[in-house]
Amino acid sequence: MRELICELLRLFYQKGWVSGTGGGICAAFGSNTVLTAPTGVHKERVKPSDLFVVDSQNGKVVHAPKDRSLRISECSPIFCAILRQRGAGSVMHSHALSAVLAADLAGNSDRVIFESLEMLKGLSGSTNLDKHPVPVIYNTVREPELESQMRDVMGQPDFKNSHAILVRDHGAYIWGQDVWETKRHAEVYHFLFEATVARAQRHSKK
Amino acid sequence: MRELICELLRLFYQKGWVSGTGGGICAAFGSNTVLTAPTGVHKERVKPSDLFVVDSQNGKVVHAPKDRSLRISECSPIFCAILRQRGAGSVMHSHALSAVLAADLAGNSDRVIFESLEMLKGLSGSTNLDKHPVPVIYNTVREPELESQMRDVMGQPDFKNSHAILVRDHGAYIWGQDVWETKRHAEVYHFLFEATVARAQRHSKK
Amino acid sequence: MRELICELLRLFYQKGWVSGTGGGICAAFGSNTVLTAPTGVHKERVKPSDLFVVDSQNGKVVHAPKDRSLRISECSPIFCAILRQRGAGSVMHSHALSAVLAADLAGNSDRVIFESLEMLKGLSGSTNLDKHPVPVIYNTVREPELESQMRDVMGQPDFKNSHAILVRDHGAYIWGQDVWETKRHAEVYHFLFEATVARAQRHSKK
Amino acid sequence: MRELICELLRLFYQKGWVSGTGGGICAAFGSNTVLTAPTGVHKERVKPSDLFVVDSQNGKVVHAPKDRSLRISECSPIFCAILRQRGAGSVMHSHALSAVLAADLAGNSDRVIFESLEMLKGLSGSTNLDKHPVPVIYNTVREPELESQMRDVMGQPDFKNSHAILVRDHGAYIWGQDVWETKRHAEVYHFLFEATVARAQRHSKK
Repeated sequence: MRELICELLRLFYQKGWVSGTGGGICAAFGSNTVLTAPTGVHKERVKPSDLFVVDSQNGKVVHAPKDRSLRISECSPIFCAILRQRGAGSVMHSHALSAVLAADLAGNSDRVIFESLEMLKGLSGSTNLDKHPVPVIYNTVREPELESQMRDVMGQPDFKNSHAILVRDHGAYIWGQDVWETKRHAEVYHFLFEATVARAQRHSKK
Repeated sequence: MRELICELLRLFYQKGWVSGTGGGICAAFGSNTVLTAPTGVHKERVKPSDLFVVDSQNGKVVHAPKDRSLRISECSPIFCAILRQRGAGSVMHSHALSAVLAADLAGNSDRVIFESLEMLKGLSGSTNLDKHPVPVIYNTVREPELESQMRDVMGQPDFKNSHAILVRDHGAYIWGQDVWETKRHAEVYHFLFEATVARAQRHSKK
Repeated sequence: MRELICELLRLFYQKGWVSGTGGGICAAFGSNTVLTAPTGVHKERVKPSDLFVVDSQNGKVVHAPKDRSLRISECSPIFCAILRQRGAGSVMHSHALSAVLAADLAGNSDRVIFESLEMLKGLSGSTNLDKHPVPVIYNTVREPELESQMRDVMGQPDFKNSHAILVRDHGAYIWGQDVWETKRHAEVYHFLFEATVARAQRHSKK
Repeated sequence: MRELICELLRLFYQKGWVSGTGGGICAAFGSNTVLTAPTGVHKERVKPSDLFVVDSQNGKVVHAPKDRSLRISECSPIFCAILRQRGAGSVMHSHALSAVLAADLAGNSDRVIFESLEMLKGLSGSTNLDKHPVPVIYNTVREPELESQMRDVMGQPDFKNSHAILVRDHGAYIWGQDVWETKRHAEVYHFLFEATVARAQRHSKK
């Protein structure tokens, strides 16, 4: 699992989702514990021994890497909130440009609707006929302050089939039952972001 | 052939044609049998032993992989219909964004015309002077339901030189005499999609 | 040199310049002879033993690869014409989308002017103050028929500092004194194409 | 450090920041000396033994590579000026298209403002609430002539938190305390360039 997380970080880096030391991933590891990448490091260079083990119930570090210069991600409370409130097994955090541009489409609304795309079938519980809403929240100065907005949107019935939250000017949090579903959901949502941004550009010209 | 199919899936993944577990490929293998990738798996990670052998005449599984968790692709009936009706030796299914945007260009029409591009010469039976029509069909809830629309367009004389079918909001099916021609046709058609979408964006601004 | 040509074909393929079996490269090899890639093959898979040796004075094959299924490129007469008329040591042929879109900018004119870009300094004999003209010719049904247009533009004083010819709807021929200058010129010209197309898109909106 | 510099040049090449032999990087190495890549070479092919050691105080070459055909980069005086005036430990020079298009946004102004992007937090000393100005200077015929404009903007209080200078029609210089911070700043600034260019394209259509 540790090696797989590092491999996925390298893949996400190649895709431009975790550049500039931003973004990250966590995955359940054992009972009520979760493996998380450190903050402020070049994500494509994270080694298996660099990961933190965190208690997903209270967010406390259970096992820190030997390298004491590494710090736990500021996303950690957010990751834990999603794991608990959604019963997810893994969460990734993307700094992709397409996520920022997709959030821009919301304007002052609290959501972006994704529709008319086969790729919706790649989301657990969705069909390609769905109008699939993803909540869009406001960015905050520090990442833990996003948590209350997130708890709120995760509790809304409209978003019960959403596996992602867009953060304006920032990116997205995307989750799944396990690390493989999170990878699939991440690829699907980034496709939805890119397709919907491209279609919006075309419509704005008509 | 099994290793080659897996190599091409990795290549298609790098190109963004089979992300989010979508898309796939099949190739004739022996007499009236075809090798097909499983569904619902990360296509760049398919191993040679994960492939199904299917009877292309009746679509039945002749040989299943040892890993019993793998399921045959929903595309399998479509792949077999193309192999039989067109005498193709291989079919690939793309979930590329450029295919979705190219299909958008059809509006309510039943086709997109590709023209004024040297790359048309890369299609078997075409010249760079051709106005090359590709049929565009409507997406359906489940992939096997596409089959009747496909049989219809494949039977139309207008599309006798087409080696591709675009599916609105979904992607494309692209085929060739063998796996190498299918790879060449896939690269040519995706170039045609990208070029024609880029030119349409420019014209819409004039 | 044979291995280097194959390595550059793989690089050009990754950049999207020689997809769908299109495009290619040749390089001087000995006295008045030139190594050329075969036609109709997946360029990223060409092996050193697949290359033809051609007499650059008369275009005749001096040494053919052992694999008798390989055919010499239709570009070969064009490559030889550029080598002789410009004293080039290597020529590459690109099927890049950016070359097609850059040629579109010419409209009915016989040229595109590239200017206000530092990258012009990467062209032998140019400064970043230059208004650098690249000739744009019409596409023909078969590649050897491009040759007379090419001889004409290569003889025009306006284009004496050009190391490239754009072919409408098709791509570009780019050359240099040797294979390394050709690689540098190819990277510079594709940058000029992309930058000038991007700037034209912006201006068309004003 | 020598191997790391070569590795980063290969990475920057893949990202399209140092194509056509343009761009480069330097990094402090010992006391008041700096390792710099040679000029006019394909940057992704630079070997550890190809690097120059330069005295950052006076810009003189302390140790030249054995290969006497290699020449010190024209950027060297600029690199040294940034190291001294900003106390930086490493500087990279980008020829990315996104940097050119971002500089275009300045028009006749002396700066581009980057704002409303979480990625600003990836810049040392910045928050995501900042309106972050980057100075934009005019291109000159030869790179050393940029130096006086650079000294001027680096001395302006408005730009005290900037770690980059955009050069019109040319690219960007980006620096950090050490090579790792320079890599992070380079990834962050290129993201800011791409995002701000994309948002400007959208707004120009409204």
